[in-house]
Amino acid sequence: MSASPTTHIAQSTPDDIVIRGKSLCHELLGQMTFTQMMCFQVLGRVPAPSQVAVVDACLLALMEHGLTPSVLAARLVYSSAPEALQAAVSAGLLGVGSRFVGTVEGCAALLDRMVAGEDPVRIVEEHRASKRSVPGFGHPLHKPDDPRTPRLFELARERGVAGPHVAAIETLSAAVDRALGKHLTINATGAVAACLRDVGVPAEIMRGFALVARCAGLVGHIHEEQQHPVMTTIWEAAEEAVPYGGVAAQHPKGENR
Amino acid sequence: MSASPTTHIAQSTPDDIVIRGKSLCHELLGQMTFTQMMCFQVLGRVPAPSQVAVVDACLLALMEHGLTPSVLAARLVYSSAPEALQAAVSAGLLGVGSRFVGTVEGCAALLDRMVAGEDPVRIVEEHRASKRSVPGFGHPLHKPDDPRTPRLFELARERGVAGPHVAAIETLSAAVDRALGKHLTINATGAVAACLRDVGVPAEIMRGFALVARCAGLVGHIHEEQQHPVMTTIWEAAEEAVPYGGVAAQHPKGENR
Amino acid sequence: MSASPTTHIAQSTPDDIVIRGKSLCHELLGQMTFTQMMCFQVLGRVPAPSQVAVVDACLLALMEHGLTPSVLAARLVYSSAPEALQAAVSAGLLGVGSRFVGTVEGCAALLDRMVAGEDPVRIVEEHRASKRSVPGFGHPLHKPDDPRTPRLFELARERGVAGPHVAAIETLSAAVDRALGKHLTINATGAVAACLRDVGVPAEIMRGFALVARCAGLVGHIHEEQQHPVMTTIWEAAEEAVPYGGVAAQHPKGENR
Amino acid sequence: MSASPTTHIAQSTPDDIVIRGKSLCHELLGQMTFTQMMCFQVLGRVPAPSQVAVVDACLLALMEHGLTPSVLAARLVYSSAPEALQAAVSAGLLGVGSRFVGTVEGCAALLDRMVAGEDPVRIVEEHRASKRSVPGFGHPLHKPDDPRTPRLFELARERGVAGPHVAAIETLSAAVDRALGKHLTINATGAVAACLRDVGVPAEIMRGFALVARCAGLVGHIHEEQQHPVMTTIWEAAEEAVPYGGVAAQHPKGENR
Repeated sequence: MSASPTTHIAQSTPDDIVIRGKSLCHELLGQMTFTQMMCFQVLGRVPAPSQVAVVDACLLALMEHGLTPSVLAARLVYSSAPEALQAAVSAGLLGVGSRFVGTVEGCAALLDRMVAGEDPVRIVEEHRASKRSVPGFGHPLHKPDDPRTPRLFELARERGVAGPHVAAIETLSAAVDRALGKHLTINATGAVAACLRDVGVPAEIMRGFALVARCAGLVGHIHEEQQHPVMTTIWEAAEEAVPYGGVAAQHPKGENR
Repeated sequence: MSASPTTHIAQSTPDDIVIRGKSLCHELLGQMTFTQMMCFQVLGRVPAPSQVAVVDACLLALMEHGLTPSVLAARLVYSSAPEALQAAVSAGLLGVGSRFVGTVEGCAALLDRMVAGEDPVRIVEEHRASKRSVPGFGHPLHKPDDPRTPRLFELARERGVAGPHVAAIETLSAAVDRALGKHLTINATGAVAACLRDVGVPAEIMRGFALVARCAGLVGHIHEEQQHPVMTTIWEAAEEAVPYGGVAAQHPKGENR
Repeated sequence: MSASPTTHIAQSTPDDIVIRGKSLCHELLGQMTFTQMMCFQVLGRVPAPSQVAVVDACLLALMEHGLTPSVLAARLVYSSAPEALQAAVSAGLLGVGSRFVGTVEGCAALLDRMVAGEDPVRIVEEHRASKRSVPGFGHPLHKPDDPRTPRLFELARERGVAGPHVAAIETLSAAVDRALGKHLTINATGAVAACLRDVGVPAEIMRGFALVARCAGLVGHIHEEQQHPVMTTIWEAAEEAVPYGGVAAQHPKGENR
Repeated sequence: MSASPTTHIAQSTPDDIVIRGKSLCHELLGQMTFTQMMCFQVLGRVPAPSQVAVVDACLLALMEHGLTPSVLAARLVYSSAPEALQAAVSAGLLGVGSRFVGTVEGCAALLDRMVAGEDPVRIVEEHRASKRSVPGFGHPLHKPDDPRTPRLFELARERGVAGPHVAAIETLSAAVDRALGKHLTINATGAVAACLRDVGVPAEIMRGFALVARCAGLVGHIHEEQQHPVMTTIWEAAEEAVPYGGVAAQHPKGENR
């Protein structure tokens, strides 16, 4: 770590912007795709074309999944404050937490432990002991298997990118199934975690890749909301589905739980 | 404006925090309600007790209105990322924009123009000409009249706080009704705008008072979501109410609108 | 828990809004302070006046602490998007997480364990073993003692509100000091956690009270930013303090960590 | 517009996700770059490769510009709540409003008016009359010219993508310069607006493209903050640059402005 506080990302001068040592105007614009540039921005290096193809596939796999809670939040906020599109996107991204897509980073951390030599059985037991689900496994709709997972692994193998982390999640999957006595799918989040780790994306910043993918997905939904608004429909459906049930009984101790 | 950049709000020392010249520990804690302190923080002065009572009533009037889009967004985000309660509250507050509660500031600005002598007929015509609704008027549910409005004005009058801005909105209301040829209620947002302006809250920061009120309301909904989660119900109701309709027809010019 | 999804908070009809069984217009407006109403909204009951006074003091203690990271974020966002004041407040609230004020809930959870009979020595050891600091203790500026803490406890005792949780944090404080071999202050967050628990605010929603307090604080800073903007000063100071340091050396393995 | 509320974006089944009529697993993953997919998601069609190259360049041009207010907000929030990376990214995106990058949409709307036949002189006069700057023009650092602009136009011309909107902004630029009596650069935001309009991105959703680009930029800064934190440096620099100036003088009328 540097002794004095610095940033190694960018510097602007009147006639150029230097990003990680390269001229934006002369060396980057027109030379790179968004995905290459994002990797350069975040990781400080441009991965090989085969790796970039896998990153692209991972971003595609996470971009869109219909009217998720995150999308609903974005549409509700957009129609409440259409003058601030950025607020709607932000509201949607705030839903990328521990329960949905944000699990990529937890899964990636487990794969790192396995690649460092840890026994998958121990990892599974640790989660069962604390009644936590293993991040990257299971999906309420995509049963018995999440269709994105085999496709991502196939691409990673075709491109020669699949490495120790893809291998690790397959070993972990077998341990999960043995412990449960039934099959639980590796979900898209788990597959993305393994693929991005094999590309060299650290676990701690992986959620950032998921956020970029979801950001694009949310923009699509907001544009549809601009053209064919359904916010009022969502609102009315929610009010009907969750009616007012009167005053809840108080707990005897006077606390509300 | 000061010549050099400074803040006039607060300073911390090891053994105290000075807020607008007063010791938090020795002069404020235990001496003020939240509402008094909020006014002191924002406006730099503690209003008279009668004024504080009106501010309290305004905050109460805006705190809660059932499963609004803002509340739905907060609950959806909370259940997606329960580890970050602040993100759920923020998502809900992002919905306090131009369409709902955020209209307080637009209404207050109109009342300022009237108090400065402008003709309400001109204000109404200006909005009709540009097909904008007059902020602070109309409510989809509370018809013919928003019940919060007369109660707020009654309180402001009882306390001797009602002044030129409450008078202005009543004049504006008459002009609105004449222009429309029918009665349109002054809604709670309009009533709050008039009352808070008569207390001396500037139009430009009035949305901030609405945000504090809604913040408390959202915390209540998130606590209910913790105890009796309805996020999945909301999600499923939305998915059912807004089904996938297949691929939309493309515009002939290849643009999507 | 109810068998079918319902909300017990509010219902709107054309001529009233019922909140937890009471008429907003006839039973609440003009009858309650903001703090009483917030407790009613969140907890479903109005605490005794002595308890409300302690809640008010807790909210005051957390409202303002100068140019904190949360305040800086709010001012930076406000000046970037002044048309969306709610976005600036939201950005500030997003900083109420694990490192600053959000620690109230972690501290409150520890106090609950102690009130349930757990040995404070064990709690301190558990944190030392995992190299985590005990939430509610220590402050970088307020040394040796946070001045808000004794004042809050004094108020809670004067009002007869101090109970097992205030007692618990004082016991925990002694255990912390013994384990460290030196004195570490109970900070304002810890003091608030103990006081609010003794009022009956559950640990899991306590961060919500901190958010309401900070929301009011942020509104004050945004209003100052409207009148005397310092965003450019903050921006320039940051750019000067964190210069561009050129391209960072790559890790030999080609990963960036 | 459909008679009943529907979404035309996506549908999930247990064994696939259909996005705008195409199978994610069989027709999209591995077939498209992120940028192509984003266009498909938002616009409902995949632009020609030459157009995608211009979209890529536009996204690169907006991704990174050093320690902007948006980046500072993201870093401040990240270090306050490192458990919620999505909150830090959201805080940063909330700064993409009317003053900085969000101006793309205002500029694009002006170009649409010109392409529809409006006289640029009238547009410039309209802005001067209301003392608003023309969106897409001027830059505090990049003087006399923003270096990104000629590079983007060069690329758009090389690829045969430059059309009526690029022509319009050049005409508008001449009108701006004549009205001012001096040269004001077309900034990157203006150049991006013209290029993306010529690709067929509607003005109303253009800010969404800027948000995706900035999202990637913010992820890079958060990753640097994880490795080499500078938040404390930023905080201290801000506190030093903006000292407490004591109690501000009250306005004689008792209002604070």
